[in-house]
Amino acid sequence: MEPFEKAASAIESLLSRSILPSGVTRVIPSDRQDEPFWPAGFTLSGINAGIKPQRKDLMLLLSDRPASTATVFTTNLCCAAPVELSKRHLAASAGRMRAVICNSGNANAATGIKGLQDAGRMAADTAAAFGLSAEEVLVASTGVIGQALPVDRIAAAMPGLKSASGSQQWRDAAEAIMTTDTFPKFFAVDVSLSGGKARIAGIANGSGMICPNMATMLAFLSTDASIDPELLMKHLSAANAVSFNAITVDGDTSTNDMAAILASGTGPSVVTGSDDSRLFGEALRTVMTMLAQLIVVDGEGATKFVELRIEGARNDDEARKAAMTVANSPLVKTAIHGEDANWGRIIAAVGRSGASFIQEELAVWFDALPILKPGLDAGFSEEEAMKVISKGAYTITVSLGNGPGRAVVWTCDLSRRYIEINGSYRS
Amino acid sequence: MEPFEKAASAIESLLSRSILPSGVTRVIPSDRQDEPFWPAGFTLSGINAGIKPQRKDLMLLLSDRPASTATVFTTNLCCAAPVELSKRHLAASAGRMRAVICNSGNANAATGIKGLQDAGRMAADTAAAFGLSAEEVLVASTGVIGQALPVDRIAAAMPGLKSASGSQQWRDAAEAIMTTDTFPKFFAVDVSLSGGKARIAGIANGSGMICPNMATMLAFLSTDASIDPELLMKHLSAANAVSFNAITVDGDTSTNDMAAILASGTGPSVVTGSDDSRLFGEALRTVMTMLAQLIVVDGEGATKFVELRIEGARNDDEARKAAMTVANSPLVKTAIHGEDANWGRIIAAVGRSGASFIQEELAVWFDALPILKPGLDAGFSEEEAMKVISKGAYTITVSLGNGPGRAVVWTCDLSRRYIEINGSYRS
Repeated sequence: MEPFEKAASAIESLLSRSILPSGVTRVIPSDRQDEPFWPAGFTLSGINAGIKPQRKDLMLLLSDRPASTATVFTTNLCCAAPVELSKRHLAASAGRMRAVICNSGNANAATGIKGLQDAGRMAADTAAAFGLSAEEVLVASTGVIGQALPVDRIAAAMPGLKSASGSQQWRDAAEAIMTTDTFPKFFAVDVSLSGGKARIAGIANGSGMICPNMATMLAFLSTDASIDPELLMKHLSAANAVSFNAITVDGDTSTNDMAAILASGTGPSVVTGSDDSRLFGEALRTVMTMLAQLIVVDGEGATKFVELRIEGARNDDEARKAAMTVANSPLVKTAIHGEDANWGRIIAAVGRSGASFIQEELAVWFDALPILKPGLDAGFSEEEAMKVISKGAYTITVSLGNGPGRAVVWTCDLSRRYIEINGSYRS
Repeated sequence: MEPFEKAASAIESLLSRSILPSGVTRVIPSDRQDEPFWPAGFTLSGINAGIKPQRKDLMLLLSDRPASTATVFTTNLCCAAPVELSKRHLAASAGRMRAVICNSGNANAATGIKGLQDAGRMAADTAAAFGLSAEEVLVASTGVIGQALPVDRIAAAMPGLKSASGSQQWRDAAEAIMTTDTFPKFFAVDVSLSGGKARIAGIANGSGMICPNMATMLAFLSTDASIDPELLMKHLSAANAVSFNAITVDGDTSTNDMAAILASGTGPSVVTGSDDSRLFGEALRTVMTMLAQLIVVDGEGATKFVELRIEGARNDDEARKAAMTVANSPLVKTAIHGEDANWGRIIAAVGRSGASFIQEELAVWFDALPILKPGLDAGFSEEEAMKVISKGAYTITVSLGNGPGRAVVWTCDLSRRYIEINGSYRS
């Protein structure tokens, strides 16, 4: 299957498992000029700048006016130069940005002062080419850690980036931020607000080194809503907690994670405390959850998509601890891969997670099929279990019987292919 | 290579990387009746009881008198029935035990009241067969979680276990506790104390589900030293922290972990605060470290043995956090597997570990070869690096430049074979 068809098929499959919030409608991407996918007020571009041998590796998202901007960044202490620079620019511009420039193929991480200078040059070159102030530019990089960024190639690519840009170039943009991704990730919705429809769209990358503790990959979103940076940040942060912070591929957290949203303000307005604000938040969560789930579907070597639900924890924090421990357990992930109804590994992971419970009160379901009932009763039918776990996507629910806490995270299986991809990634 | 030769070769290789403490000498195992390997006062036995189709699956370690006993157990909340029962027996007998009975092939975990009754029956049957009180028996199980223990087969095997027992049967015993292990694990030393030589010997199992938070596998040790249970517990606990608690294969912690040592008291005496006590502690640490390292060498699918040293952390706790995060990172482990000098993944793992540092002060060595120097200077020779990382065993050292804290852990690579083993273990 071609990458674009693969993405479309993954989106259909994920949508079939979920219900869109009321007032939120999906935007179907199209290449026709009269059917825009991206919110008005933005142009996008994605080209090859020669950082990678062949594939697209440089992306620009440009707002035609200063856009309200909110961003979440990695918490990794070895955060990359572009992360540091973008934080400074965001503060200097008081959350009113014009552009995001992002390269793949090189993370500009662990590159010290030189790396910071290079990130600065990337912002300055972008600003010069598009008539912006450098401080209005967010910079992002993804790829190999510890190698100098080929800034001259990026500078030389500015004219090409400019001529390739347009309001329909979201596909190119999504492709240009891919690393080990096998398909580009994109999604958009409309949300009906009192002042009319607002659109929210996003692209993301990420495939390995995925276990979020802020953002964990790159995601760039836009909306035409009119919203101030503080309220936008509140919505981004809330949506991030249940989307990009609720996925794991391998438990590793990147040095370069960033999720940014730019609001052009050409559309309906969203103010604090309004019903519109709640609706906008739900719509943003919908887009970010889809992008997050697409990352798991495309996890390195993944063949299974599992929604892991923890219920009955003492509180939400303990539920999240339990969920992430199960979702990251290599033994659980290999059992998912091997289509083995190995509930013992699931409760063993819950048992070391730090969540509190009495083991006799645990219950486990695969989709709606009870696997373990309270009292450690595992009298399930292997045949019925196989019907669930042989599917490409299913839900594992664990109830701890210890309170109202709950959490949902998404994970994938661990396959030989993960080893193959990561045993030779750098070279 | 035959399992026994494989074990012997792994021991030689690990010993070549370490220096025995002064006063400690290795005991070379032999099958000759006149060259004992195990401390005096104990008999061992290992047979097939029909829990597994063919291989040995039932082990007995018997002391000819009540032995001072110390034990560390798993901290997993889903701890198995034999763990619960053994804790009770240890308390009831005030740390004076006569025997350890252990089966492989079934963990008797997540088996509820029935499991506890079955563990009790296993202790009672052993006690009846060998003329002991049931409360003098420690019970351990390892294998699949959530299946009823075939207690009748274990009961029926008691006469066979008795007739197969002897002071030279440590090989059989080590084999009988194997699960996915590819070779039996055993080691013994003599330590010169003021009252003469004391011997400490041990067997262990463990290959996957290895990331300790107390013990993390099964280990049964004996000594002929005369030592009270409290002091023995102090030494076991201290040695455990730097041996079984310093290894990881996959980050998973088992429901059944237990490390126990029985001291017959037929040999020289060890009292609190003496120089002998210090020497005894070092000797015990030597034996437990060897058993722990053998578990890593035999990690599921492992092809590399890596000693990971963290130095310059703010304190030992932060050093340990950093060490365990790097040692468990799938990206680091796949890079080790792929012989890729990917230092970026190492510092990215340190960066998310919770340890504090400034990234410009990080330094990384592979054995004695500097890979990253402070100031993020990674000007190493790939060729020189390859000479180190193509070896079967080497050391990765990371200095955080932030204090006196240090930690050492041992880990292995993550290979396709791990996936193969664990994708189909239960069936």
